[in-house]
Amino acid sequence: MEPVKNGIPDTVALDEEHNELVIIDQSRLPGETVFLRITQTQPLVEAIVNLRVRGAPAIGVAAAIGIYVISSRFEESGPAAFAERFLEVRDTLAASRPTAVNLFWALGRMARVVTRYQGGSVAQIKEKLHDEACAIRDEDIDVCRRIGEHGAALLEGVDSVLTHCNAGRLAAVRYGTALAPVYCAASNGRGIKVYADETRPLLQGARLTAYELSQAGIDVTLICDNMASGVMAAGRVQAVLVGCDRVAANGDTANKTGTSGVAILADYYHIPFYVCAPSSSIDFACPDGGAINIEQRPASEIREQWYTKPMAPPEAAVYNPAFDVTKAGLITAFITEHGVIRPPFLQNLRTCIQQV
Amino acid sequence: MEPVKNGIPDTVALDEEHNELVIIDQSRLPGETVFLRITQTQPLVEAIVNLRVRGAPAIGVAAAIGIYVISSRFEESGPAAFAERFLEVRDTLAASRPTAVNLFWALGRMARVVTRYQGGSVAQIKEKLHDEACAIRDEDIDVCRRIGEHGAALLEGVDSVLTHCNAGRLAAVRYGTALAPVYCAASNGRGIKVYADETRPLLQGARLTAYELSQAGIDVTLICDNMASGVMAAGRVQAVLVGCDRVAANGDTANKTGTSGVAILADYYHIPFYVCAPSSSIDFACPDGGAINIEQRPASEIREQWYTKPMAPPEAAVYNPAFDVTKAGLITAFITEHGVIRPPFLQNLRTCIQQV
Repeated sequence: MEPVKNGIPDTVALDEEHNELVIIDQSRLPGETVFLRITQTQPLVEAIVNLRVRGAPAIGVAAAIGIYVISSRFEESGPAAFAERFLEVRDTLAASRPTAVNLFWALGRMARVVTRYQGGSVAQIKEKLHDEACAIRDEDIDVCRRIGEHGAALLEGVDSVLTHCNAGRLAAVRYGTALAPVYCAASNGRGIKVYADETRPLLQGARLTAYELSQAGIDVTLICDNMASGVMAAGRVQAVLVGCDRVAANGDTANKTGTSGVAILADYYHIPFYVCAPSSSIDFACPDGGAINIEQRPASEIREQWYTKPMAPPEAAVYNPAFDVTKAGLITAFITEHGVIRPPFLQNLRTCIQQV
Repeated sequence: MEPVKNGIPDTVALDEEHNELVIIDQSRLPGETVFLRITQTQPLVEAIVNLRVRGAPAIGVAAAIGIYVISSRFEESGPAAFAERFLEVRDTLAASRPTAVNLFWALGRMARVVTRYQGGSVAQIKEKLHDEACAIRDEDIDVCRRIGEHGAALLEGVDSVLTHCNAGRLAAVRYGTALAPVYCAASNGRGIKVYADETRPLLQGARLTAYELSQAGIDVTLICDNMASGVMAAGRVQAVLVGCDRVAANGDTANKTGTSGVAILADYYHIPFYVCAPSSSIDFACPDGGAINIEQRPASEIREQWYTKPMAPPEAAVYNPAFDVTKAGLITAFITEHGVIRPPFLQNLRTCIQQV
């Protein structure tokens, strides 16, 4: 398992001794800290579908380490048979959630390893899969750290930010994306206060963002999603930081449902709105937000989940999209591991990312 | 008790036989329908503070009927002693919640009756208080009915609206304010579909709006507050209808927390934003939104209430304003019992209301 930093274990880790994927079960936070050890496909799909592991970067790393530990147990002796079974697992994992591109990106990288080493032995393929999974994990840590540094520099002079959902360390391996600048500033001795939208229906802001920031000793104030306008009107925040599940080539950004509303409020109140995006979240094959598949989730999440009793009558219909699309025109800048990218995004995203 | 319409009792009623205020305990909806019978000050204060009766018009009527039934039990024999005790109760009730002006408006009307009949007997004062409370109740029913008619005419051609919080029949005696146009259209055979914001933290949209519309056979879809932007972006609604707790002279409007955010979204998506306002909610003594006292409510409403376990760590701070102020410039029109009032509001609110 990964080394523990300040008593806080990595959100997604590979236990090298037992060859197991280890994740924090986020569905039980903040009340209980339970680690799940995964070695098979179905438990991993279940963990992704039920948001035991969530956050685009964390899902990507969990899929990479997961498909490695699962396929490391295959007993097929030939590379072709191994590849066939590997691709079945890949397809099953890829079908678990539709919106975050990191899942497909990570599975794609892992599948290319299998293809690349088809001429070698199964043992060699397994070794290379191990190395690729570790690389994806290590890159995530490095990318988030660099987003944090670029963001902290950009936020010079900012005392207080608002964030939606959880794009903190629990959404990645460490540091997170949207919260990375806050952690980076804190480690430089500069406190940035965070207003956290609770983020209905699954309360990632209350359960995860408020939890991880409190745990790290960072000043956090929890609000209901609908209070963001009042917080901005009162001048309580000078910037908005959010993560993303998929960025289209033109800069349109799919993120947790409600993000587009926060962006519209920020625009109205003249507050900069920053999307913290590892370049793995940018999907150049996707022209704009209209092409992003938005996951619909069960009505029970709104009517009943978490509650002591149903809070809405069963006769009422429910609309429960997990994500929405923020138009590029509402985004002040993307904070990526390669630096801060400003409009025009159609040109600058491609230039900045692909030049690297 | 008031006659029951379509099997649905009035939200606030006077039981003439027992001289009791009868309210539906809204804190227990939608699971249980429990009626509370109130004859004393402290139970009425408790019912208002804990939102057993809520909604600006309903609070006003409950205060009027309540102070009548409470003072009808006074055993003071002289008008001066009666008045002294009456004003103590008035002050206690007036301190129960700070934002909705209808509470002060209704208590003010009742107190003026006591002043007006100081030359008569206590029995006469009690009789006149009874009549004034019934008048306030009957006027509420009539005002809501007329808001419904004006609103239904205004919404000709509209198939679908979005509403925030509950300004339906449960927020008044019957019909409500924001939902009155929907009920009126339905009674004319025209269905208007409603998207209901669940309205965190107290879920008045889920528990009350979705409940009362379902009960009335009206097509209602429940969403989380943060999904309003997605609903508007998808072209699913052609108007927004909300109620109000207090309208300042310039049109700035205090209403349930989150209303200002919905107004900003409606402005961005070019969707008309209508505030349904009985003239009793307009406070000409209040120049603008900055002068409206916004109630702060307990952190427990966000962290714990309704949940099987705490959903946020106790270390995280909580900001929980019950209301926010929507700037007049974001409001397309007010729908009042006297008709539709358009900008400039500073001039037109006064002209339309005071001409009557």
